[in-house]
Amino acid sequence: MISQSIIRELKKIVGQEHLLTDREDMLTYSYDAAVLDSQMPSAAVLPGTAPEVGKIITLCHENHIPITVRGSGTNLSGGTIPQASGIVLLTGRLNKILEINEQDMYAVVQPGVVTAALAAAVEKRGLFYPPDPGSQAVSTLGGNVAENAGGLRGLKYGVTKDYVMGLHFFDAQGRYVKTGSRTVKCATGYNITGLMTGSEGTLGILDEIILKLIPAPAARQSMVAVYDTIEQASEAVAGIIAAHIVPATLEILDNFTIRAVEDYSHAGLPIDAAALLLIEVDGHPAVVAEEGEKVEALCRRMGAGNIKRAETDEERDKIWSARRSALSALAKLKPTLVLEDATVPRSKIPDMVRALQEIAKTHRIDIGTFGHAGDGNLHPTILTDRRNKEEFKRVEEAIEAIFDKALSLGGTLSGEHGTGIAKAPFLEKEAGWSSILFSRQLRAALDPRNILNPGKITGVSQEGRH
Amino acid sequence: MISQSIIRELKKIVGQEHLLTDREDMLTYSYDAAVLDSQMPSAAVLPGTAPEVGKIITLCHENHIPITVRGSGTNLSGGTIPQASGIVLLTGRLNKILEINEQDMYAVVQPGVVTAALAAAVEKRGLFYPPDPGSQAVSTLGGNVAENAGGLRGLKYGVTKDYVMGLHFFDAQGRYVKTGSRTVKCATGYNITGLMTGSEGTLGILDEIILKLIPAPAARQSMVAVYDTIEQASEAVAGIIAAHIVPATLEILDNFTIRAVEDYSHAGLPIDAAALLLIEVDGHPAVVAEEGEKVEALCRRMGAGNIKRAETDEERDKIWSARRSALSALAKLKPTLVLEDATVPRSKIPDMVRALQEIAKTHRIDIGTFGHAGDGNLHPTILTDRRNKEEFKRVEEAIEAIFDKALSLGGTLSGEHGTGIAKAPFLEKEAGWSSILFSRQLRAALDPRNILNPGKITGVSQEGRH
Repeated sequence: MISQSIIRELKKIVGQEHLLTDREDMLTYSYDAAVLDSQMPSAAVLPGTAPEVGKIITLCHENHIPITVRGSGTNLSGGTIPQASGIVLLTGRLNKILEINEQDMYAVVQPGVVTAALAAAVEKRGLFYPPDPGSQAVSTLGGNVAENAGGLRGLKYGVTKDYVMGLHFFDAQGRYVKTGSRTVKCATGYNITGLMTGSEGTLGILDEIILKLIPAPAARQSMVAVYDTIEQASEAVAGIIAAHIVPATLEILDNFTIRAVEDYSHAGLPIDAAALLLIEVDGHPAVVAEEGEKVEALCRRMGAGNIKRAETDEERDKIWSARRSALSALAKLKPTLVLEDATVPRSKIPDMVRALQEIAKTHRIDIGTFGHAGDGNLHPTILTDRRNKEEFKRVEEAIEAIFDKALSLGGTLSGEHGTGIAKAPFLEKEAGWSSILFSRQLRAALDPRNILNPGKITGVSQEGRH
Repeated sequence: MISQSIIRELKKIVGQEHLLTDREDMLTYSYDAAVLDSQMPSAAVLPGTAPEVGKIITLCHENHIPITVRGSGTNLSGGTIPQASGIVLLTGRLNKILEINEQDMYAVVQPGVVTAALAAAVEKRGLFYPPDPGSQAVSTLGGNVAENAGGLRGLKYGVTKDYVMGLHFFDAQGRYVKTGSRTVKCATGYNITGLMTGSEGTLGILDEIILKLIPAPAARQSMVAVYDTIEQASEAVAGIIAAHIVPATLEILDNFTIRAVEDYSHAGLPIDAAALLLIEVDGHPAVVAEEGEKVEALCRRMGAGNIKRAETDEERDKIWSARRSALSALAKLKPTLVLEDATVPRSKIPDMVRALQEIAKTHRIDIGTFGHAGDGNLHPTILTDRRNKEEFKRVEEAIEAIFDKALSLGGTLSGEHGTGIAKAPFLEKEAGWSSILFSRQLRAALDPRNILNPGKITGVSQEGRH
């Protein structure tokens, strides 16, 4: 617990009404969307200005107090679970869009701006901010940058890091660091912008984010392809990629997920289908027409029984809001939902899908599978009850089996959900011990008192090394 | 100078024929394409395998010997100028394309592979590696990654960092670090891949580079628009960008450059034109046709007297080889050529062009201007004779005036040529002292003996701070 004098100092910085210490509030900030032990912080602060952020960091640095920055807490790897001896810094009041530059196609935002709010604001001006994490309706851009968040459009448009042109942030010692630029090219100094993106609040606290915008696509075509087996659906994904067609979105849902989603959203999905592919192509109308045809033909050749195109905006929205409800829909089914994020080279999607079925069988658990198949980024989703220790042990073994399979296929532990606490013990498997040492040296130099989101990313090794 | 026993050790590692110490060889590696004092190294080594690279670093680390990695030495900011007490590590023998994966669209290469060689190899398979620095015919991919090199296609396709999916490298202590992945998304651990890209050989020595490939565009249309004033040409650039058209390439040449290029390449450029825009749109044939029309109409509206489209591949190649010869053509005119790289938000191109004309007048020097106008990335080129001290002083003042103007327009010192030695003293102007301290702490932690390319990027401050 932090001392009363620190509490008084924090109050002085942000004002009484922006400092929270009640037990109810601390409970709210004790967990995120990952299945991990919760941890109540000592206090939560809501700074309203950059100087306030700087003062908070300086105070915490001087007094060795851990700070965990939190946007909307939608993190799926425990990256926003705080320390008992530390504070949570909430970005909710730092929520202004500072600039949308139409001519030069960039936006400058504070970290607490909600992803969908920026997307809507730039859309009004004919521009497009593509990264669209599943949680975009509530997630913040600061959180997206901290996690290098992905989304449904990653296949064609990339992920958050592909849009971060520059960052201004306070480092662990309270210094104000500027990196990157409002220009589309910048090769001055180290690419600190790249390093900060995905650093999960461990290297600095963001003040301003400069984001690249692009012209909005002129046309879009969405479709749903229905399959009798998930193997066929996954082969179709590999076939589309191998034909060098790049849809904006190429998602898969297995029968388990289809049923859950339909029950939740009543979108009219065929609940007897073994699997669905939800596909959108976008761009120039001629490209959309041609790629739409090609994708449809490929899907049929790969065994799609039925393909339904969205004929209206309403039909299109129905498809995507159904897809976006998958996580919520699955979460209703059992007390505990573990959402994994292992990612493989795209041609290995059929292998991964087969492996997931075997792993479910071997470990006697339910795995629903959906996700960004076109990116090689599946979200195998395990439904369980954490209180059932015997079953949860099998779940943990299954998760490790998923990681091992993804790595053996040339993949990665996490495509877009970050490392956090959940994957830190497995990092060595993927990157090796040298990479962890390299990361730790870097981190220790930039945060010598280990106050910025301690315990995340570069955590304990599975082999028991520290 | 390094000792004879170190020379013997190096010989043992790479073999006698791959260790160079002759004065002629040392002269060859004493400079690069930047206008800076040369510096002879103590030796140059040509390792042939990754374990040899590892052993060289370990030896140098143990003995505090600086290592400067060099590809083809086309660096324009002094990033490959070595230390007298150090060695040059040449990547020439590490020149294998290890994998081109057509299905998953990536390539794995060693650092010594020439950029154009990879581009040609993937083109044969219907794929596309877009980054095309001016020096692509000789520059290496390792150098491109180290410098985060740009090129003519940056406008639509981005720069090298947008294509680096993963890196394997030896750090300063000889540890082998793996970062990134063969998957299109990877959020495991820190984004060390991003940090390494553009780090100019100061944080590690590359072994393997995993590069993203994309489908090749189906069609292309190149054109040349002729202007009576450079102001009109630069307004046309801003107009095209503001209309949210994104050509693959949008280059400007002023009259000074046109004459030099025509004299050198006999490409048939109109030598009386005040300025030319060289433009290419690419993609689906329908998009190319439509965007081609739009660009042409815009160029005319902005005052283009004549617009010539390339009707054949031959005509197209002529345009681009003329453009690519600009640097060589200008370099022939006077003993010393200083190529600057300041970059501004794209709508500020007209302001920057005007400022360059004023700066040339004020400082009584010749500035040729060409470059990637569509990126806001001009290459003002100063022709001078370094031996003329009075004139060179004016050149240095003009360079600083260019930097100041770019920064005042919201721009950056370097769009694509890196910081190296040339821009290190000016870094503080752009990023502030805190950013330099942050970078230095990071660097000192990762290279505690300061052996990797010392003196680059985080160099002495202009204010005399160290």
